[in-house]
Amino acid sequence: MAEFVVGGAQMGPNQKADSRKMIVARMLALMEEAAGRGVELVVYPELALTTFFPRWYMENEAEVDAFFETEMPGPETAPLFERARELRMAISFGYAEKTPEGRHFNTSILTDRAGNIVGKYRKIHLPGHSEYDTERAFQHLEKRYFEPGDLGFPVWRNEGVIMGMAICNDRRWPETYRCLGLQGVELVMLGYNTPSVNSQMSAEGLKERLFHSELSMQAGAYQNSTYVVGIAKAGVEDGHPLMGGSIIVDPDGFVVARAESEEDELIVASCDFAKCAFGKSTIFDFARHRRIEHYQRITEQAGVIVEV
Amino acid sequence: MAEFVVGGAQMGPNQKADSRKMIVARMLALMEEAAGRGVELVVYPELALTTFFPRWYMENEAEVDAFFETEMPGPETAPLFERARELRMAISFGYAEKTPEGRHFNTSILTDRAGNIVGKYRKIHLPGHSEYDTERAFQHLEKRYFEPGDLGFPVWRNEGVIMGMAICNDRRWPETYRCLGLQGVELVMLGYNTPSVNSQMSAEGLKERLFHSELSMQAGAYQNSTYVVGIAKAGVEDGHPLMGGSIIVDPDGFVVARAESEEDELIVASCDFAKCAFGKSTIFDFARHRRIEHYQRITEQAGVIVEV
Repeated sequence: MAEFVVGGAQMGPNQKADSRKMIVARMLALMEEAAGRGVELVVYPELALTTFFPRWYMENEAEVDAFFETEMPGPETAPLFERARELRMAISFGYAEKTPEGRHFNTSILTDRAGNIVGKYRKIHLPGHSEYDTERAFQHLEKRYFEPGDLGFPVWRNEGVIMGMAICNDRRWPETYRCLGLQGVELVMLGYNTPSVNSQMSAEGLKERLFHSELSMQAGAYQNSTYVVGIAKAGVEDGHPLMGGSIIVDPDGFVVARAESEEDELIVASCDFAKCAFGKSTIFDFARHRRIEHYQRITEQAGVIVEV
Repeated sequence: MAEFVVGGAQMGPNQKADSRKMIVARMLALMEEAAGRGVELVVYPELALTTFFPRWYMENEAEVDAFFETEMPGPETAPLFERARELRMAISFGYAEKTPEGRHFNTSILTDRAGNIVGKYRKIHLPGHSEYDTERAFQHLEKRYFEPGDLGFPVWRNEGVIMGMAICNDRRWPETYRCLGLQGVELVMLGYNTPSVNSQMSAEGLKERLFHSELSMQAGAYQNSTYVVGIAKAGVEDGHPLMGGSIIVDPDGFVVARAESEEDELIVASCDFAKCAFGKSTIFDFARHRRIEHYQRITEQAGVIVEV
């Protein structure tokens, strides 16, 4: 399949008081709109089913677990899969996953157009911290509530297209795109919840933060000749502003669709996956140009080692 | 040292008929201008001493070797080092290097402010091809005339700042910046000669090509919390247009100085290296956030492996 109509379903805020049912209803409304615009795959944000709870420090396990799904689909999410199946629309969205073994991950799934889950990704680059931080304007406790993903960066051939997933902070790390690019990825789906304010530097403005988000996704797309769909949960959620800036980026690194609001908003682009081939076979023909013998530091050391 | 005034000496075209002496005289004029503006380190382009000769297919060894330096400094380049020493200015520039063993590299050097060579880098990501390509609008034979660099991506502490070098096509590869970033780099110096036209896709315009260049340098700077100084040789060289777009990028990824012409032109920025610390200790604190156990593909496979 050469052309494929991709939708990004940016979501406005999910308040803590909102039920899963209310939130799923909004996701279904976005899905209907997408169907009306010919969308064949729709991408929702990270933690689409809940508020961005890592902003709060919690010690009570039951309080934390209330934000997690123990099955997917479950009773509250089944309508998403059922309607997607009827509409012949593949979907991808993020949620907090609690496994039968009691492990916690920041997860996203991908379905085919028949409503079957064909892929799962667990966020690898967890930002923030694990204990209460008195120095921050607000908390960012992803390292407390989630384990780092244990599935690597897989890809799937879905509806003829090589697809991969990443979540939020993953998008700032070139390793994310490169691990996918080395598997021939043509479409990277990426949901995020990004505070509009830097909890450690209040002077950094929204404009700067949107720039960093877009820069990272554009570079990842260009340097791996892949489409990137980056979709936000946005707006003021339980008193905390999340930035929008959802975009679809083409394999040349250009933004081809962009959300204008911080609310539920669908963006759409017809993606021509034949466009991935030019970069992959010329300037970014990895086999001809990469020199892995000089890259050893990238996998041998996690942190900086200053030797001079 | 916290603040350091960095200059980028973009150069207009070097015609094949221009002598080294004429070219060095232009470099010296840029150095004088830099001194007048308080510059403490000036960065010149890739292959600063010659025309960009890989655009021509040559079989005669002597014809090729005429573009190479066998010593650095040599008689024609010594005045650069002497004047830099007098002005207490560190310099970096690129040239074609032929070693005593007869090996050929696309090289750049770095001096301290006393005019001593303290660093050498040999270009790792050679673009283009090694044999005459009838499909191209013009040739790009770097793989014919140079070996890939054999020095890795070293850094040096020079005048108190951790500095690294890269050359031209290296700037499009996130591995370049990451290998330097993992050594704590604070300033990446990067010269380039980039045709204004894609030899394999004439529809790609200058604007797109400038965007790709800038995008790559901005992402590399942001994702490694380092200054990047990217300096072009520009203008119509022996009938072939080279793009300009020289920039200095700060550790947040923002352009803080930019060349406006395709001629000899100095750009200047006062670099506050304390600004590198915030990113390196928060969002890009590699030791806390990188997950090298999931990056193995980056060093285990050069090319794409499609398994789905």
